[in-house]
Amino acid sequence: MSGLRRAAARAWGPPRALRAFSARPRDRIVETVGKLLQTKAQLETEEGKKNFILKTPKGTQDFSPKQMAIREKVFSTIINCFKRHGAEVIDTPVFELTETLTGKYGEDSKLIYDLKDQGGELLSLRYDLTVPFARYLAMNKITNIKRYHIAKVYRRDNPVMTRGRYREFYQCDFDIAGQCDPMIPDAECLKIIHEILSALQLGNFLIKVNDRRILSGVFAACGVPESKLQAACSTVDKLNKMTWEDVKNEMVGEKGLAPEAADLIGEYVQLHGGLDLVEQLLQDPKLSHNKLAGEGLRDMKLLFEYLMLFGILDKISFDLSLARGLNYYTGVIYEAVLIQQQNDRVEELVDVGSVAGGGRYDGLVGMFDSKRQKVPCVGVSIGIERIFSIVNCKVKASKEKIRTTETQVLVAAPQKHFLAARLKLISELWDAGIKAEMLYRENPKLLKQLHYCEDTGIPLAAIIGEQELKDGVVKLRDVATRQEVDIPRQKLLEEIRRRLES
Amino acid sequence: MSGLRRAAARAWGPPRALRAFSARPRDRIVETVGKLLQTKAQLETEEGKKNFILKTPKGTQDFSPKQMAIREKVFSTIINCFKRHGAEVIDTPVFELTETLTGKYGEDSKLIYDLKDQGGELLSLRYDLTVPFARYLAMNKITNIKRYHIAKVYRRDNPVMTRGRYREFYQCDFDIAGQCDPMIPDAECLKIIHEILSALQLGNFLIKVNDRRILSGVFAACGVPESKLQAACSTVDKLNKMTWEDVKNEMVGEKGLAPEAADLIGEYVQLHGGLDLVEQLLQDPKLSHNKLAGEGLRDMKLLFEYLMLFGILDKISFDLSLARGLNYYTGVIYEAVLIQQQNDRVEELVDVGSVAGGGRYDGLVGMFDSKRQKVPCVGVSIGIERIFSIVNCKVKASKEKIRTTETQVLVAAPQKHFLAARLKLISELWDAGIKAEMLYRENPKLLKQLHYCEDTGIPLAAIIGEQELKDGVVKLRDVATRQEVDIPRQKLLEEIRRRLES
Repeated sequence: MSGLRRAAARAWGPPRALRAFSARPRDRIVETVGKLLQTKAQLETEEGKKNFILKTPKGTQDFSPKQMAIREKVFSTIINCFKRHGAEVIDTPVFELTETLTGKYGEDSKLIYDLKDQGGELLSLRYDLTVPFARYLAMNKITNIKRYHIAKVYRRDNPVMTRGRYREFYQCDFDIAGQCDPMIPDAECLKIIHEILSALQLGNFLIKVNDRRILSGVFAACGVPESKLQAACSTVDKLNKMTWEDVKNEMVGEKGLAPEAADLIGEYVQLHGGLDLVEQLLQDPKLSHNKLAGEGLRDMKLLFEYLMLFGILDKISFDLSLARGLNYYTGVIYEAVLIQQQNDRVEELVDVGSVAGGGRYDGLVGMFDSKRQKVPCVGVSIGIERIFSIVNCKVKASKEKIRTTETQVLVAAPQKHFLAARLKLISELWDAGIKAEMLYRENPKLLKQLHYCEDTGIPLAAIIGEQELKDGVVKLRDVATRQEVDIPRQKLLEEIRRRLES
Repeated sequence: MSGLRRAAARAWGPPRALRAFSARPRDRIVETVGKLLQTKAQLETEEGKKNFILKTPKGTQDFSPKQMAIREKVFSTIINCFKRHGAEVIDTPVFELTETLTGKYGEDSKLIYDLKDQGGELLSLRYDLTVPFARYLAMNKITNIKRYHIAKVYRRDNPVMTRGRYREFYQCDFDIAGQCDPMIPDAECLKIIHEILSALQLGNFLIKVNDRRILSGVFAACGVPESKLQAACSTVDKLNKMTWEDVKNEMVGEKGLAPEAADLIGEYVQLHGGLDLVEQLLQDPKLSHNKLAGEGLRDMKLLFEYLMLFGILDKISFDLSLARGLNYYTGVIYEAVLIQQQNDRVEELVDVGSVAGGGRYDGLVGMFDSKRQKVPCVGVSIGIERIFSIVNCKVKASKEKIRTTETQVLVAAPQKHFLAARLKLISELWDAGIKAEMLYRENPKLLKQLHYCEDTGIPLAAIIGEQELKDGVVKLRDVATRQEVDIPRQKLLEEIRRRLES
């Protein structure tokens, strides 16, 4: 537009066609151009309004009161567990310096969401809560903390909303940082997963456990060069979604591993079992020559000992196919999956999907420290979105009625002109800490008021009318039984509390 | 780099200087260039690492466990109040389509924070929770809801962290949407502010109330043209920070109002009082000719009547200087300020700053509806960051010790080789829902374990050693009194619960 205006201003004489119609040709042109521009702007605005789509950004969602009521229940189960294990809570910003996130996520780095450069800082939305936690520890020189953090994270992923994959979603993380004796905090993380998945009653589950050091040892023993370790790792991680044949093809074709190396790897990564498998691998001469694998296996043995003391061994599987994609893991890794029995045959368990995961990342904090000072860390992240969709389905199936408010009393009136009396009464209830509502109408119908109680699940109605005002009482109605009793005004609070407790 | 490499590949013959040293000149060049590039990359990485600044983005902050403990206390006071008034909770994404936010914030629009275009959608971080709420209502055709929403919002403001102005901060919003009889929900919003500020014990406060319709009437009566109304409004809003002289200068100089109009406005906007002022203005012939002003004043009278029934009139001031900057307000507006008495003279109250605000916005939802269907709304937003800094100061001054965990029992051992016993015992406590911790060491010193209780405020220690194991008991220690009692193992949970309740 400004280009057009500038062009018009530059033309000192009017074009030939206009010259005949204008007394002061330049004014005429400016005027005409102005009108055209105005029309254009108007058309654009109207088109803009027409084209405006009322939606949330791609891969994001609103949560309705009903969804929130379910989410809050799940969150409180998780938070209770984290607090039971002595965790403090911290919060970090939604975005970080882009540099903070760079080089921490391996192949997934392309999914980091950037902000526009506005003020000289290159910023990105946080991809998880682990890297911000490590940045927080290094920045504040904290070498010892047990914290949880529940917040939204962002992935510029291709959203598959129906399968619970979003661009904005919550993570629930619990982490233990600090010098500890081997496998004690690691075992606690697994106990936490066990407690949460048991409490949420999502169905049968299995916690797969492995160790990055064991994987490295296996890869080394199978002849994978150091430089291809990370790539091989992220391919093995796909074993729960792909057949071994496909994984092998990717290793050889895309990642450039030798076919013989891949075959050898295949013999290991398809193994899973318990303490017996750990013992067996400890005897394996190929692995015992590898320092890392030896350390990993001895620690795995210790871990199983602690998990036995916690009484949760029946849900644990030492699984050599578990690799987990992220770059920062250095030791134990784990992932909890829900399992279903197919065709009632106990042997065929179907993996419904991962609902929790985590592991040890002893190097991450050091990456932020100028002196490269390490703070060993281990943590667990609960896959809350998938859990929500399961709980949602269960709630729908059960036809259980979810209350979205906690209102205890509706203040109602049976006659007209009782707004002042209702306002005075509800104010007394609020001041006494009682959760109360009233309809925002001067003269609502009594039936409408009582229906509101039934619709929203409010258990009590405090009714005040002419007779009640005269008698100095309030009629207290039990919404479920429809029983009504007159209560002296000064005993009302006491009576309401008594009824709510019972 | 790839340009350099390509240039090297294009040169079929080696440059003169290299020719003498190489048997296969092309290989030699490629090798040399490769080495140079490697050195360059290494230097860049090292420089990058050196220049990396460990910080949160400008205008954002981390919250430590101690800060979070204080925040959670304040949040719970606020949430309790919102729930007491029957509110549901919703959540919306952190970013919206940029279009959704455009044209809603008047002069403040320049502070909206944009995301990089990544996937064809222009997105911005939410500026407040009100516009997303309106978008949510229109999108889901909701015409009736009472909800609260506590979440972070974003302003590309020049951060003044010391004065509590951030680029990322929390808002706590409560809103009532739907057709209601006049001023009933509006009065409830003021009651909510009163309840929250009273409960938080921040000191004396005052809730200023005005009405956009009254302001419009005043401006019209003083001869301000419709087109300059918004500009005049946002200038008047600065009266709490600037003298009337400065406000007048801005009106005349920057906003182009006639000096006589400004003088007339000055006579009105410096008025404040109670119901008497409302009555007085209702008699003002200049205002009574204005339809909007008449409506606003009659509603203000009604509001005062309801606030009297709520018993909160003493904290309310009808203040004609209150304008509030945002475009979307259409009716009643309010703002709560903390006040301090200067020099012990009650008359001179100093405005310490706004801690809550809100108002009626009947047109906002309609802006998102293709049929322009209106949903009347009124709401309140709690200025939580300022409240936190006040509470923080109070906590610091009182030297009160803030616990950052809720741990009830530390599981300890007095001798070496009791890790297994500790793990077994703590597992029992966790399974019974008791909040328990232990040190992550195989053989910690007893003194260290007891110090940990004292440092973090854990009230009980459950001690298990050789003698206890033999006797089938656990030594329960009261950390404060240092008293120890042997409790039979099967009675331990019961005894712990009994002690925690008392």
